[in-house]
Amino acid sequence: MYDRIKGFRDFYPGEMGARREMFDTVEATARQYGFREVGTPALERTQMYVDKSGEEIVEELYSFEDQGGRDVALTPELTPTVARMVVAKQQELSKPIKWFSSRPFWRYEEPQSGRKREFYQTNVDIFGSSAPESDAELLACAADALTGLGLTSDDFEFRVSHRDILGGLLEAFDADVDTEAAIRAVDKNEKVGDDEFYGLLNDAGLSYEQAREFDDLLDTPEDELDDLVAFAGTDRVETAVENLTEVLDAAADFGARDYCTLSLDTARGLDYYTGVVFECFDSTGDVNRSIFGGGRYDDLIEGFGGQPTPAVGFAVGDATLTLLLQRAGVWPDEELSTDYYVLQVGDTRDVAAEVTRELRDEGHVVETDVSGRSFGAQLDYADSIGAETVVIVGEQDLADGNVTVKDMDSGEQTQVPVEEFPPEGESRPTYEDFE
Amino acid sequence: MYDRIKGFRDFYPGEMGARREMFDTVEATARQYGFREVGTPALERTQMYVDKSGEEIVEELYSFEDQGGRDVALTPELTPTVARMVVAKQQELSKPIKWFSSRPFWRYEEPQSGRKREFYQTNVDIFGSSAPESDAELLACAADALTGLGLTSDDFEFRVSHRDILGGLLEAFDADVDTEAAIRAVDKNEKVGDDEFYGLLNDAGLSYEQAREFDDLLDTPEDELDDLVAFAGTDRVETAVENLTEVLDAAADFGARDYCTLSLDTARGLDYYTGVVFECFDSTGDVNRSIFGGGRYDDLIEGFGGQPTPAVGFAVGDATLTLLLQRAGVWPDEELSTDYYVLQVGDTRDVAAEVTRELRDEGHVVETDVSGRSFGAQLDYADSIGAETVVIVGEQDLADGNVTVKDMDSGEQTQVPVEEFPPEGESRPTYEDFE
Repeated sequence: MYDRIKGFRDFYPGEMGARREMFDTVEATARQYGFREVGTPALERTQMYVDKSGEEIVEELYSFEDQGGRDVALTPELTPTVARMVVAKQQELSKPIKWFSSRPFWRYEEPQSGRKREFYQTNVDIFGSSAPESDAELLACAADALTGLGLTSDDFEFRVSHRDILGGLLEAFDADVDTEAAIRAVDKNEKVGDDEFYGLLNDAGLSYEQAREFDDLLDTPEDELDDLVAFAGTDRVETAVENLTEVLDAAADFGARDYCTLSLDTARGLDYYTGVVFECFDSTGDVNRSIFGGGRYDDLIEGFGGQPTPAVGFAVGDATLTLLLQRAGVWPDEELSTDYYVLQVGDTRDVAAEVTRELRDEGHVVETDVSGRSFGAQLDYADSIGAETVVIVGEQDLADGNVTVKDMDSGEQTQVPVEEFPPEGESRPTYEDFE
Repeated sequence: MYDRIKGFRDFYPGEMGARREMFDTVEATARQYGFREVGTPALERTQMYVDKSGEEIVEELYSFEDQGGRDVALTPELTPTVARMVVAKQQELSKPIKWFSSRPFWRYEEPQSGRKREFYQTNVDIFGSSAPESDAELLACAADALTGLGLTSDDFEFRVSHRDILGGLLEAFDADVDTEAAIRAVDKNEKVGDDEFYGLLNDAGLSYEQAREFDDLLDTPEDELDDLVAFAGTDRVETAVENLTEVLDAAADFGARDYCTLSLDTARGLDYYTGVVFECFDSTGDVNRSIFGGGRYDDLIEGFGGQPTPAVGFAVGDATLTLLLQRAGVWPDEELSTDYYVLQVGDTRDVAAEVTRELRDEGHVVETDVSGRSFGAQLDYADSIGAETVVIVGEQDLADGNVTVKDMDSGEQTQVPVEEFPPEGESRPTYEDFE
């Protein structure tokens, strides 16, 4: 017997059905917003991640040399791949480019609740627009996906911040600050105490007094953002505050404003963000880590050799979203369900098969016996797959031209002429109708 | 600029949309048959494949040592993984176990038409039934998936064979035959000439005369299968012929018989098959390789340390199926389509956003401007995404309480009071209705 690899997961049908509903809802929302699905490879050159994140990233990658001598890595995130794809066809793609995809990624990290070595993400990105409406559209799409899953504004909030406000404030101090290190410190702020936070800021170049002042500035409420502009006295902070305000205004029009709270001490860990960033949190705090996040990364495409192309996106991961949905009591039902089980008694396979096919033609999920089993064993099986209705095709009934239709909920049984089964008008919209 | 790895593919929205329709149709068919989706890891212990297929398989694998010192491989196929999963929960799973999944797999092979290093498969399997109805159900499900994609019996055929007929015939010869090698020779039969085929059979232990006789036996027509029973004179061949006949009879009841042709020189390459096997071919021969295949593998679960559990399945791959659909002229449309584009003229974002949200609430795919662009640029963009209807929300129209609705096909424009747009009754079934 073989074991599964640590940090990797098998999903059996019940759990997988719930997960499928989760993914489908997020994807259906993205589709309604006009995001188009792309398909991407599981392997990329390791160098792509090293160039973007430094040599130390390799420790977190599943990277290896392939049979052809290439240094390759299992993709730890989507953004570099879609950036590569945008660059490869930047002339022919009409802007804005709106893409989404759902797929697994891999990171060699210590597994814990909400973090696996193999995890699934839906990534949603817009390339080619720097307008605040594009940031706001992503916030709205993310909010609609979550409300589509049954969550409400009592369940989640988007903590919205702006990288240029953070960077602009940092550069306004009379100190030689390593901005990236300081922003990474902000990102850790929630997880560590003030002492460690100030220590990290001090490592990044601020004095302890400046660190405390910076921390105070991060608490500035939304209606006093002008204070930040006044403090810094730079175009950079003025423009950033204006942009943040415009994004929140657009989010109001797009229906997402209620989910957003200003939270300048939200920073996002990745270095490539340039503008508005946000993180989704459990409003109750029960799930005490970021559920997912996103933001603007206007420099990445150019850094990948493309023409300057603004970009903004978010990625929602399966593990943390599952925790939130379960906490909120809206995790989809894991029970199997089946519309019909067609039960064969005696030598009735031909008629049962015909009934089965007709029901499937109407769009139903239908099973019939493929094991040559007894009446009782078939009924037990029908029960195990959550069959709503069992159609009993028996030799004796058939001699009178009938089948027996059993409602599994009420236990009620009725005899129906086989010619009239399935009754017309039973059909419901199928996936094809929807497409 | 980074390059994509050889044998791996990027899928941009047009092509991806067509692929999604292909996958969705196959999956929807499997769901209607009561197959349940499972989720499986991309990495497994390399040893699992070595034990199953021998040390030489490693050359075809993307295998490596992970950071924790494990010998792991990117999964080259699903069957060992689902076998592992069945063994892990064999007590609690009610039989028959009917599973499907769609996902990528990886093999280090030389890429060619219809064969990539990263490829996608939908696997469909039944565990726990040895009855001929289970083989037949898979043939029917595969056939329904293909006809659902627009193919007809003029386009494809299932060449059906039986491993125990082949094995039983081989052991009936007065020779010391390596059955696995001989069956692999049968599998290559179509691709090589008679001389090479006989040479391979000779390598496997048959004399050249026996090889020719064996080849003649493989041409036995369906109504003369008793000749094979007579030739071998063994229970094994008698039982196998009976089983093959029963599977074809059940396939007739299940509506798949018309797609099946007896073809004893179809063998399937993998060693683990034990009973009925089949391969789908292009009836016109234009795609001159197997499109996909499947069969019975009753010994694998036990070989993986489980209780004896009969199993049968098929796996349809994206690359060859794409070739067949394209050859038959039923490859789905690659054009983007969008129900509505809501065009903003002047300061109308709030109203445009409201119209957009109402249309999305009705289940439509709707885009609006997120780039702050001109009328003309928005109309060009609406055209590029295949918008069927453009709703023009202009300042002047709004002053009169109107929006302009433009049918992009006819070019016809009508003014509609914004209060009455979208008109009621416009909604169509959404994915949620279907679920």
